[in-house]
Amino acid sequence: MREFELVIQGGLVVADTGTTRCDVGVADGRIVALAEKLDNGRQIIDASGLLVLPGGIDSHVHVAQPSGASIIADDFYSGTMSAAFGGTTTILPFALQQRDQSLLEAVQDYHQTAAGRSFVDYSFHPIITNASATVINQELPGLIRDGYRSIKVFMTYENLKLSEFDVLKVMHVAREQGGIVMVHCENDGAICYANEKLEQEGKTAPQFHAALHPAIAEVEAVNRIVVFSEWFSVSVMIVHVSTRGAMESIRRARQRGLKVYGETFPQYLLLTAKELERPGLEGTKYIFSPPPRDEASRDACWEGLSTDVLSVFSSDHCPFRFEGKGGKQTPPVFKGFRAVPNGIPGVETRLPLLFSEGVGRGRITLHQFVALSSTNHAKIYGLYPQKGAIAVGADADLALWDPEREVTISQSVLHHGCDYTPYEGLKVKGWPITTILRGQVIVRDGKLQAQPGTGIYQKQNALFQQYPFAPL
Amino acid sequence: MREFELVIQGGLVVADTGTTRCDVGVADGRIVALAEKLDNGRQIIDASGLLVLPGGIDSHVHVAQPSGASIIADDFYSGTMSAAFGGTTTILPFALQQRDQSLLEAVQDYHQTAAGRSFVDYSFHPIITNASATVINQELPGLIRDGYRSIKVFMTYENLKLSEFDVLKVMHVAREQGGIVMVHCENDGAICYANEKLEQEGKTAPQFHAALHPAIAEVEAVNRIVVFSEWFSVSVMIVHVSTRGAMESIRRARQRGLKVYGETFPQYLLLTAKELERPGLEGTKYIFSPPPRDEASRDACWEGLSTDVLSVFSSDHCPFRFEGKGGKQTPPVFKGFRAVPNGIPGVETRLPLLFSEGVGRGRITLHQFVALSSTNHAKIYGLYPQKGAIAVGADADLALWDPEREVTISQSVLHHGCDYTPYEGLKVKGWPITTILRGQVIVRDGKLQAQPGTGIYQKQNALFQQYPFAPL
Amino acid sequence: MREFELVIQGGLVVADTGTTRCDVGVADGRIVALAEKLDNGRQIIDASGLLVLPGGIDSHVHVAQPSGASIIADDFYSGTMSAAFGGTTTILPFALQQRDQSLLEAVQDYHQTAAGRSFVDYSFHPIITNASATVINQELPGLIRDGYRSIKVFMTYENLKLSEFDVLKVMHVAREQGGIVMVHCENDGAICYANEKLEQEGKTAPQFHAALHPAIAEVEAVNRIVVFSEWFSVSVMIVHVSTRGAMESIRRARQRGLKVYGETFPQYLLLTAKELERPGLEGTKYIFSPPPRDEASRDACWEGLSTDVLSVFSSDHCPFRFEGKGGKQTPPVFKGFRAVPNGIPGVETRLPLLFSEGVGRGRITLHQFVALSSTNHAKIYGLYPQKGAIAVGADADLALWDPEREVTISQSVLHHGCDYTPYEGLKVKGWPITTILRGQVIVRDGKLQAQPGTGIYQKQNALFQQYPFAPL
Amino acid sequence: MREFELVIQGGLVVADTGTTRCDVGVADGRIVALAEKLDNGRQIIDASGLLVLPGGIDSHVHVAQPSGASIIADDFYSGTMSAAFGGTTTILPFALQQRDQSLLEAVQDYHQTAAGRSFVDYSFHPIITNASATVINQELPGLIRDGYRSIKVFMTYENLKLSEFDVLKVMHVAREQGGIVMVHCENDGAICYANEKLEQEGKTAPQFHAALHPAIAEVEAVNRIVVFSEWFSVSVMIVHVSTRGAMESIRRARQRGLKVYGETFPQYLLLTAKELERPGLEGTKYIFSPPPRDEASRDACWEGLSTDVLSVFSSDHCPFRFEGKGGKQTPPVFKGFRAVPNGIPGVETRLPLLFSEGVGRGRITLHQFVALSSTNHAKIYGLYPQKGAIAVGADADLALWDPEREVTISQSVLHHGCDYTPYEGLKVKGWPITTILRGQVIVRDGKLQAQPGTGIYQKQNALFQQYPFAPL
Repeated sequence: MREFELVIQGGLVVADTGTTRCDVGVADGRIVALAEKLDNGRQIIDASGLLVLPGGIDSHVHVAQPSGASIIADDFYSGTMSAAFGGTTTILPFALQQRDQSLLEAVQDYHQTAAGRSFVDYSFHPIITNASATVINQELPGLIRDGYRSIKVFMTYENLKLSEFDVLKVMHVAREQGGIVMVHCENDGAICYANEKLEQEGKTAPQFHAALHPAIAEVEAVNRIVVFSEWFSVSVMIVHVSTRGAMESIRRARQRGLKVYGETFPQYLLLTAKELERPGLEGTKYIFSPPPRDEASRDACWEGLSTDVLSVFSSDHCPFRFEGKGGKQTPPVFKGFRAVPNGIPGVETRLPLLFSEGVGRGRITLHQFVALSSTNHAKIYGLYPQKGAIAVGADADLALWDPEREVTISQSVLHHGCDYTPYEGLKVKGWPITTILRGQVIVRDGKLQAQPGTGIYQKQNALFQQYPFAPL
Repeated sequence: MREFELVIQGGLVVADTGTTRCDVGVADGRIVALAEKLDNGRQIIDASGLLVLPGGIDSHVHVAQPSGASIIADDFYSGTMSAAFGGTTTILPFALQQRDQSLLEAVQDYHQTAAGRSFVDYSFHPIITNASATVINQELPGLIRDGYRSIKVFMTYENLKLSEFDVLKVMHVAREQGGIVMVHCENDGAICYANEKLEQEGKTAPQFHAALHPAIAEVEAVNRIVVFSEWFSVSVMIVHVSTRGAMESIRRARQRGLKVYGETFPQYLLLTAKELERPGLEGTKYIFSPPPRDEASRDACWEGLSTDVLSVFSSDHCPFRFEGKGGKQTPPVFKGFRAVPNGIPGVETRLPLLFSEGVGRGRITLHQFVALSSTNHAKIYGLYPQKGAIAVGADADLALWDPEREVTISQSVLHHGCDYTPYEGLKVKGWPITTILRGQVIVRDGKLQAQPGTGIYQKQNALFQQYPFAPL
Repeated sequence: MREFELVIQGGLVVADTGTTRCDVGVADGRIVALAEKLDNGRQIIDASGLLVLPGGIDSHVHVAQPSGASIIADDFYSGTMSAAFGGTTTILPFALQQRDQSLLEAVQDYHQTAAGRSFVDYSFHPIITNASATVINQELPGLIRDGYRSIKVFMTYENLKLSEFDVLKVMHVAREQGGIVMVHCENDGAICYANEKLEQEGKTAPQFHAALHPAIAEVEAVNRIVVFSEWFSVSVMIVHVSTRGAMESIRRARQRGLKVYGETFPQYLLLTAKELERPGLEGTKYIFSPPPRDEASRDACWEGLSTDVLSVFSSDHCPFRFEGKGGKQTPPVFKGFRAVPNGIPGVETRLPLLFSEGVGRGRITLHQFVALSSTNHAKIYGLYPQKGAIAVGADADLALWDPEREVTISQSVLHHGCDYTPYEGLKVKGWPITTILRGQVIVRDGKLQAQPGTGIYQKQNALFQQYPFAPL
Repeated sequence: MREFELVIQGGLVVADTGTTRCDVGVADGRIVALAEKLDNGRQIIDASGLLVLPGGIDSHVHVAQPSGASIIADDFYSGTMSAAFGGTTTILPFALQQRDQSLLEAVQDYHQTAAGRSFVDYSFHPIITNASATVINQELPGLIRDGYRSIKVFMTYENLKLSEFDVLKVMHVAREQGGIVMVHCENDGAICYANEKLEQEGKTAPQFHAALHPAIAEVEAVNRIVVFSEWFSVSVMIVHVSTRGAMESIRRARQRGLKVYGETFPQYLLLTAKELERPGLEGTKYIFSPPPRDEASRDACWEGLSTDVLSVFSSDHCPFRFEGKGGKQTPPVFKGFRAVPNGIPGVETRLPLLFSEGVGRGRITLHQFVALSSTNHAKIYGLYPQKGAIAVGADADLALWDPEREVTISQSVLHHGCDYTPYEGLKVKGWPITTILRGQVIVRDGKLQAQPGTGIYQKQNALFQQYPFAPL
């Protein structure tokens, strides 16, 4: 047998369906052998006592995204470095169309911003904010066919939302070209109503952010998108699910065989609206949308992850700083929570939080952990089996994971550009020791081993949400 | 890398979750390597153009089972030979306790009958027909711990049925010892009622067999067992599901997180009650219980397989002959369908039927085929990952499958001891070319390559219906 | 306009659907006029400030029923006197077949026992405990046609239960002849299992009575009967519903259009299993089956009453005494709760409890009160519109109700033969002042006004669960 | 007993819950006596062989409503005459606010239009098309309190629709003031999408009207309104329900105890989209919205009526003429179905159609007929028990109904201002012979007996969707 570039020895290889104790042989950046014993590697890594996981895939990330007066604190350099330290080897950030901009231009801009700057592989979800005839008829079909298969739309937010008419146009193109539509589901009218009421009552402290986004706004909008999905037979991803009602809609849809997927985040599993009541402006550190909810919703999200209602677990990494110009604390001087930028950091802490709180506490299995944090992202967004799998032929994207390593999460141990973490002081058990991208070690023992540009763009292939018989 | 006993080259390796083009290296009867290219094998099999599947597991098989005046036409010799020709490498037959017999004795008897006679590996499901205090308190706990983890009970049939009280006792022991209870679910009262009515009306022709087992008898009994399963938190397998109503119960149970599994057979996917109306006594060839039902039920079974309601696909191979003493046609002279032995052959045709009608017609995916015909059986009955997987460390139980081979099913091409097949004349596409058991080729190109005794007994390990974190 | 025998002036007439302020004119025992003002009555009752209700109908009552060593403390004399004081004008007691007895004989025995002894009208539900061919083929069909349309069967209890086969036979006859089957739904196996376990563990104190009848035993049995009801298209009454799960079955059945009705009692609305834990043998005063359950079940029963899942509210008056020979306290010396007779008194307190706790606390409307305590009983059991209605042509069975009267329930104010009330000390608001049977005042201002024999037997007419167009 | 103005003798009085054979005595326009025999009437009507029904209430009627270039062919004179001939004694037309108009003005305009012109009583549903701050904060609260308790809003149609934000504002006021919101539920985006597609494809013939209003547009919008209703605990009426999916939403809402009501029309029970395909422009006679749908939807509507999912049965009388200026055939020359006025006549045929096709064919009971066509309207819109009941104290609004009278529906037998009926040639059995309004015969034996102005305005009282205990 040939010499390998890299051999991982002695680890427990974990997939979404089972575990195998075997060595992993890598050549040309791909896994070329799995065997009881491999030793002829130019580089050999001893993984005894470690889990060998497919590298994490984070399919909900905001980096280098213009955000008005506020500033997202991570570009591709710092954002992907942070991802790599967290065991993630592929991210799917958004490419946001400005309303007066061509969608193609928007995508090209993000390519330029990312090129040569990234430590992990990446692919893009274009966001459509202006569904002009040009976008719908000319730009979008080609983009989907060219590998931008996941298109995001918003049902609320003044500068982002599309009308239902426009959402339907996007869905129709996605259906025709083989794309999937990601939808931010909240009922705009309900939020407008809540906003007016809160303003009339002078409720502008951070704690009222929760009331601005009532649960029913999410529940209603999810149901509407499910109906549209069925009408057009188009795949949809319900992003950031945070309520039991929304999960019930998704569950019923999936039982009927609809291609409706759901996503949740660490913040819905670990935080509740009580965090918004922290003294002073500390509550602004927990302002994101949909907001943290109550304990029952939190439990429902865990249940959703463990019962196949929610398919992917992402971070919604959206690193607005707390301090400084455009920070959460100072928009520019605090005028009420409506002016606080919505979003929190999380790309680096995503995997340890799910492992420790999920697998460690018996809420999900180790195999569900792999599916939710890596494999399902790859399957749904057209990157499987190149990504998300430890199998002969797959990219050698791996996270070597120490299930016993205890870490106290703290801003001081993280590598993002943000100035705080919402999980400061939380103890977790289980941490990525080594991160490998296409056979190259990019992080090892807490040290960066790679240059920016190591990570490259990956096209999304034709979706195969079901896996039909592949002819020989 | 070491020399392999056997290398399978150039095939497409198919698991329940994905496909990989790679070679398979075998040593000591186990898979020890999966790699892009392996060539140092003492024996090399070219699998180009073939699918490399985990060997089939058939967990519902009757062989060498005493059946009163009727005779099951297969013992371990002919039954497992037939299995091997059909691509199956492990069977789980029943070990039936006679009412006046110790359960331990019954199990020992089957061991003696099987020893040295089998071409494929096997494990046993004990059937309890007399839940005496000795059985419940002394024999059963030890048997479960010793690897007989799947215990079967009947809710109907004069000489087999247990009272609900006894079923609950069995469930309690299974719960305490880590077993799973397989239940023949039909409401006994409903069948008695139907029987009396049919007799009063003189309806004794084969076609009335369907009316003897009304659908509601199954639906009701399944619901009852689901309730019991929840009461005791005990795993249950609902064997031979044939109705939509039963599937609805199972679906709801699974959504609530209960460990309730369902099984179906080829006969519920391909046959309907119309077969019972064949002229003369031909209809007796289709007498099995629950009976073939209507087209809507048939479609529901396909839906159940494709939507994770039904987890395993078995044969219920129960080879009563048509002709001769004790045959279906002559019990001893035809006195009415009630005297006809219930059961049909099917261990050899199981995989080709599911592949051709399921994968070939797009009703299930290739991956579901593997899960339903092999992997899930292993997982549920404590044989995984030794069986049911193509992974480093697993037994090298393989079926090399030609997806293009067209075969007309006929008694003349089969190897069972029965004198007919209910699928005579049916054309299928896809057939097993080579069957390998623990690295040894047992069937190749239509020729038997092994001796009886090649197959051995396999204990069922502690069940792990979910796959928790395995400590290193 | 003619002279009336009796005129009720100035009351508020309440039906199951609305209220009318009008006078009521009675002749020949029937209501012959409703009008704004009637004054030409030989007898005039001033009902100002009172509600004029249809007399209560209690369709679940045990009087003069042989009960082994224990003695039911009420015969028709005392039992119907107690009913009359409680505002009830019709009862439907059971006519229990002894296992070695003809069903016809059993019914005739009860007629003899009742004749000339009753203060209110009555009809019978025969209980079948021996479904012999004679009973099924000869006696039962005629009985149903003769006006015994409601037949009761038990699924548990050693000396009462029928096999499922026999239950199905009864259902079939009911279906053919236009009857309704009342079913005591509890899974016998589950109770046997619980019993054995409790005995093994020496748990014989009254508090363990609750564990003897697990909620799932009820839930399962109700589902089974619903399935049977659908199979035969036969009307069924699920008596004494006490669990949410049972109500879910009934709700789903009713939504599908099945003729499945549910009943509950005061004890499931007001008591919980905590009562069984009273010191000494006081807990035996709360031993009835199904047992009092938890608070969630209690709330579910209220919900069932207010949402049309439960159609009738009865008492299950079963007056076993606490003291004396055969009393609950002394069976003959206390040997454990299994020997305690199951049942409590309640025919007199039924209406005040529902009015005060239901209408008074806003849990049900006044109109639901009338439906649940009177009208629906008449409709379901073939007595409507002769009974259960205040309409021209109906029997003048009325309860004049003071909604402001406050009473503390106490053994000293009741008229039953039992020696305690489980509601001792409970304060209620709302009490019947005058009870009128077919135009004759039988109770007024706390004084009996009638002779035994005033109440007579009433046949149950052909059921009309739906009220089709009656041709002119 | 006093002399009566009018006595109805010998009829069968039918209510929503039962039937009584009795005479009806009327004084001062109200029912003052119901009795076996009444004879001292100044006027006596013999109703032998007839049903005595509460006069019909039609709560969805368009008369005298400005409609752009098209003209509604009935004003209060002809529209209420037609209603009276059809057995209807109260209508609830809409009072449409023009977008540039005060809501108060709109209501006053309709009062002026109606005053002195009507043959039956009437009340108004204001339609809000401009939810200005003045309307929401000043006009609407007072209007609701003054007896305009049912407010209608549209979710689609260019000149009528409100934004969700505005719908929520209206709901909030309704909730605070004790009103009910009637909602035209169709998803505007879906209709816009369908419209654009049909136009692009040149599909302008009448038959494509069905595709313009896809079923999912209704299903989705109904679900949204149910969510809003729950959020605000506000009563809502889902008008013109035509799909099974919408009914499922309503059913689930009602099971949860929400005050969500549904309505349907004759056109959804009797017509399907096939009518739109009639040759030439005949199809335009069946253009209304939502459109006639398929046979399964039609059956679902019958099921909804018979199972308490739909509470009211109205006509949506909207009499656009077929011929002449502004007629359906000539808008002004046919430019495609989008220009055809939406709506059909039906106020006169409503009751006979429901009686003949519903009661006559066994799809609903006679009592459901009364509830759906009269009583429930009164209860939901605050007119009960003055209207919708035959009880002492109620208005003597009656329809004497001959259940045996056979009539062939034809334009020639009707009295509306429209020039066709969509039911031309349909034979019905059952017809109103005499219509009585507050004791005055307004139609008898096919002849008008009253002057315009006989009908007067009726305020809607405080809603009491449940009927709590009315203190004495």
